[in-house]
Amino acid sequence: MAHFEGIAFDQALIDGRAVAEVVRAQVAIDVGEFRSEFGRAPGLGTLLVGDDPASATYIRMKHRACEEVGIASIHRTLPADATQEDVERVTHELVADDAVDGVLVQVPLPAGLDPEPVILAVPPTKDVDGFHPWNLGAIASTLDGIASCTPQGVMTLLDAYDVPLVGAEAVVVGRSRTVGMPMAMLLLQRNATVTVTHHLTRDLAKATREADVLIVAAGVPGLITADMVKPGAVVVDIGTTHTPDGLRGDVLFDDVAKVARLVSPVPGGVGPMTIATLLQSTLKLAQARARARA
Amino acid sequence: MAHFEGIAFDQALIDGRAVAEVVRAQVAIDVGEFRSEFGRAPGLGTLLVGDDPASATYIRMKHRACEEVGIASIHRTLPADATQEDVERVTHELVADDAVDGVLVQVPLPAGLDPEPVILAVPPTKDVDGFHPWNLGAIASTLDGIASCTPQGVMTLLDAYDVPLVGAEAVVVGRSRTVGMPMAMLLLQRNATVTVTHHLTRDLAKATREADVLIVAAGVPGLITADMVKPGAVVVDIGTTHTPDGLRGDVLFDDVAKVARLVSPVPGGVGPMTIATLLQSTLKLAQARARARA
Repeated sequence: MAHFEGIAFDQALIDGRAVAEVVRAQVAIDVGEFRSEFGRAPGLGTLLVGDDPASATYIRMKHRACEEVGIASIHRTLPADATQEDVERVTHELVADDAVDGVLVQVPLPAGLDPEPVILAVPPTKDVDGFHPWNLGAIASTLDGIASCTPQGVMTLLDAYDVPLVGAEAVVVGRSRTVGMPMAMLLLQRNATVTVTHHLTRDLAKATREADVLIVAAGVPGLITADMVKPGAVVVDIGTTHTPDGLRGDVLFDDVAKVARLVSPVPGGVGPMTIATLLQSTLKLAQARARARA
Repeated sequence: MAHFEGIAFDQALIDGRAVAEVVRAQVAIDVGEFRSEFGRAPGLGTLLVGDDPASATYIRMKHRACEEVGIASIHRTLPADATQEDVERVTHELVADDAVDGVLVQVPLPAGLDPEPVILAVPPTKDVDGFHPWNLGAIASTLDGIASCTPQGVMTLLDAYDVPLVGAEAVVVGRSRTVGMPMAMLLLQRNATVTVTHHLTRDLAKATREADVLIVAAGVPGLITADMVKPGAVVVDIGTTHTPDGLRGDVLFDDVAKVARLVSPVPGGVGPMTIATLLQSTLKLAQARARARA
């Protein structure tokens, strides 16, 4: 686990870039030890389907991050008109590749492709994204599973800032399988009292105002305003929406920063943590696989 | 699905026995159809380890319930001094038995035995108790999984009484893998706003007083008193503790019945639903297995 004592944190800002840098430096050290012990690099297999520019950018960022810490990338691409069978076949090929410890299929897939069988095609032992039901169930059971990168990255952020969680009232806005649900489970594992809200919640402001720790993953730019936040709360913004004015989060940062003790910005908050956590998870899967063989 | 229009419900009491009877009658009809179509009875394989009288009673009740609806029971027992290997071996034998559609290992196991590998020994396709991480993850992902019998039975009760769930504030007390966690996920699937509380929750009464639907699975007799309940709320008591004075629930029934719109008693509330749901789940697994072969 990385240590964060060296960082001089701004009082109100959760600096995801600074924390991610510490995490990546630690992963680089651990990857070095892995390579000496097992004589190979941990490997991340990725599949990009189609030519969505945002997806292509994310994949490039992930590859660069891998390279920086010494993780090998094994990359496959398919055109936008790839069939369901193509996507599943290449996914299976990545899974079968002995050099691949974790398999990441970049989402969203182009319209018309069903992500469900693709998710199930990646076994829990190579499920670096933590999307497989097994991994979600393992987290819900407090077994040792791979949590989806974004919520796991949020936990690392909260720990870096020593945010108390035991008995804290945590409110999660959003309940997606990849973010909101695992987020809620990770907070429960750490003994917070957890409320999950969503677009059918009757009085969202009433719920969020109870939160000592408020995690927002709604994908609705500017959804959370100062009047919805308890004074002194810690607010983490997972929402990222591409708008004509650039990347926007779910939290009105300048407004909320006036009442919250800590707020994470977009960009520069959770985003860098997601990629840093992907590196951690790839290494974790590589270690588990190498040890299972030893 | 069973229909409940015929039952004359008492205004304040959630009558689990009456609802369970309707469910069992429907399962009996569906089992009859299954037998005509596939030429065999659905089969429930059970394993009882040791001589705990309560566990022996539960197993007997389950067998009797199976018999009444036409489900075959395949029963194995092991002495209290059985080894971990014995328990896992017999579990594997039940899983391998072609006549067995669902495998139930009665918990708790005697002290010294680790339930974890036993739970993982039952594959999701025969996991009638819904204890396997896959099934928990499937529920969290709104995939089609087998939910643990007790929370699934609670959902049936809530539906029988037409309790509105969309946007309702639901509070679950307890977060066990087999009850509290799947309960929270099932309520989220039905679009309630869900709060999960536990023994480290700072102000339990504050949380429970917000609940339109309060589900209590703490195992602490008499934990929930009238002052902790919102007037007009629906309260379901999952707690069952064997005391010198008999079976006690987590809810002080007479007290809470004064403020709640509906309360489930112990006994006669959730208990009968757990067994009725076990029958439903055994049939569901049998149908899935038979169809996968057809």
